[in-house]
Amino acid sequence: MRIVSGMRPTGKLHLGHYLGVLKNWVELQKENECFFFVADWHALSTSYEDKLNLKNLSIELVRDWIAAGIDPQKSTIFIQSAIKEHAELYVLLNMITPLGWLERNPTYKDQLAQIKNKDIHTAGFLTYPVLQTADIVLYDAQAVPIGEDQKPHLEIAREIVRRFHHLFECEIFTEPKELLSPTPRLLGLDGRKMSKSYNNAIFLSDTPEEVWSKLRVAKTDPQRVKRTDPGNPEVCLIYDYHKAFSDEETIQKVEEGCRSAGIGCVECKKWCAASIEKVLEPMRERRESVSNEDIAIILQKGEQKAKQEAAKKMQAVNKAIFEVSCQTQ
Amino acid sequence: MRIVSGMRPTGKLHLGHYLGVLKNWVELQKENECFFFVADWHALSTSYEDKLNLKNLSIELVRDWIAAGIDPQKSTIFIQSAIKEHAELYVLLNMITPLGWLERNPTYKDQLAQIKNKDIHTAGFLTYPVLQTADIVLYDAQAVPIGEDQKPHLEIAREIVRRFHHLFECEIFTEPKELLSPTPRLLGLDGRKMSKSYNNAIFLSDTPEEVWSKLRVAKTDPQRVKRTDPGNPEVCLIYDYHKAFSDEETIQKVEEGCRSAGIGCVECKKWCAASIEKVLEPMRERRESVSNEDIAIILQKGEQKAKQEAAKKMQAVNKAIFEVSCQTQ
Repeated sequence: MRIVSGMRPTGKLHLGHYLGVLKNWVELQKENECFFFVADWHALSTSYEDKLNLKNLSIELVRDWIAAGIDPQKSTIFIQSAIKEHAELYVLLNMITPLGWLERNPTYKDQLAQIKNKDIHTAGFLTYPVLQTADIVLYDAQAVPIGEDQKPHLEIAREIVRRFHHLFECEIFTEPKELLSPTPRLLGLDGRKMSKSYNNAIFLSDTPEEVWSKLRVAKTDPQRVKRTDPGNPEVCLIYDYHKAFSDEETIQKVEEGCRSAGIGCVECKKWCAASIEKVLEPMRERRESVSNEDIAIILQKGEQKAKQEAAKKMQAVNKAIFEVSCQTQ
Repeated sequence: MRIVSGMRPTGKLHLGHYLGVLKNWVELQKENECFFFVADWHALSTSYEDKLNLKNLSIELVRDWIAAGIDPQKSTIFIQSAIKEHAELYVLLNMITPLGWLERNPTYKDQLAQIKNKDIHTAGFLTYPVLQTADIVLYDAQAVPIGEDQKPHLEIAREIVRRFHHLFECEIFTEPKELLSPTPRLLGLDGRKMSKSYNNAIFLSDTPEEVWSKLRVAKTDPQRVKRTDPGNPEVCLIYDYHKAFSDEETIQKVEEGCRSAGIGCVECKKWCAASIEKVLEPMRERRESVSNEDIAIILQKGEQKAKQEAAKKMQAVNKAIFEVSCQTQ
């Protein structure tokens, strides 16, 4: 199956990103033909005022992906802004996209209501589902792994595809299906959303020492004051981390040991660190083994592949629109 | 001075287009560096449902331009969709363009109120001033020849330029000035707006016989029933055509002859046809002399020049946005 997915380059990735997205990508690439792109244009829709060096952030994002197990031999990796066809198709799809579809989009309304620290009342933010549609249908994605909040966007993508087919009497695109992936949410070490800006995240690039220094000071069950007090794992953040990263046996040992005061919190955290290390250690190795030159070559190869697909698709799109001629093959 | 202007490829040009736009372009190219482009993407913003063969219409539009005296040796002629940088810059400018600027645009409101036979409640129609801005600033246009109704769009273009300079702390673009050109309006031969769809237009490509057959049956002063009745040129459409195309001497002869019944309407129309022929005859010659291959070569050369300028500009734009680095030269 052809799968397309993107990620915005807004900073180094943490365990929350891994659990929520990347782990799934690594699985998907085993059985599918995956296109993973760095959505640097999309990043602008909310970060245009932030003066981020998106070029560097994009390269670092790819490095994080490779570290996490995205395999450039299996998957096509590229940066959105390198493939101008995304912009070309966006122009054309905007022409046929009713404003109402975008204005009534529940995710759009939610974000307008929630995001208060940025001015997102822009043409780009309103129309970003159209750019997203272009990203997806340019490559005939059959499925797109998304979280619940992205469902309205994929619905818009399908509507735009149908409208295009109807208006230009030409079935050029594949209607993308949603691949509602399990996106377990991992809270930050202070119980808030895991985020770089809250300083509560374990990054994929952290050293074992950094991981331990963060875990060591993390809050546990506040009722368990002394070593001999029995604890309640259900209210302990570290237990969540065990459930995310430890094996069944460890999880059970932690649960029993905590409730019976058989283990102390430091011991529990050490086991947790060891479990996280099982994930991060191979990432560190892969990160070490990939040089800047390797990344440049990976992107060059990915962009070549993406460009080829995109250009072929745009040829058919332009024939349908500008020559009223339908060539589906 | 660098001047950029575009025209939508919606059908063959008539005398109204010549008087309103092309005559001015021909003048401008004498003293300025002009970029004239076929706005085929813009055509979609209102014609996406019309199944026009915009590729052919674009080529025919260029043929009309050449016929009318646009000189490919002096001016750069290209088709918008051939230069993908217009789309790329449009994506980026959308990200920083407040929706309010577009929604409050008086021309937008007027058009929404007036255009009832097309569904223009689309993302493309709302954002077309942003695409227009990209068209202009990509080439550092210092001036843009416009009619009164386009003033708000040029104002938006300047606002977007200022916002870009402010947000990315980089003075990359030239603020385009308006060149409010005299756009005398020529009514169609039935007194309505001259339009292909009203069947009341004299086309630049009409033969002398076609011109005469159209003029011959055109209404004149309805009060002048008999040849001996004196007429009132002020209410006669043919007199408007004289004022647009005849020399001073003829105009005076017409005025006096009409008021005194010294000339008949047929005679007056014959003089009018002769005046129009002075404009159309050289157009016919130029039209004959330019082959399809010539047009292909003109466009190839124009696109090469435009592409070069656009790519250079986008390099600076992308550096400013994605690398937070300002290189104005």
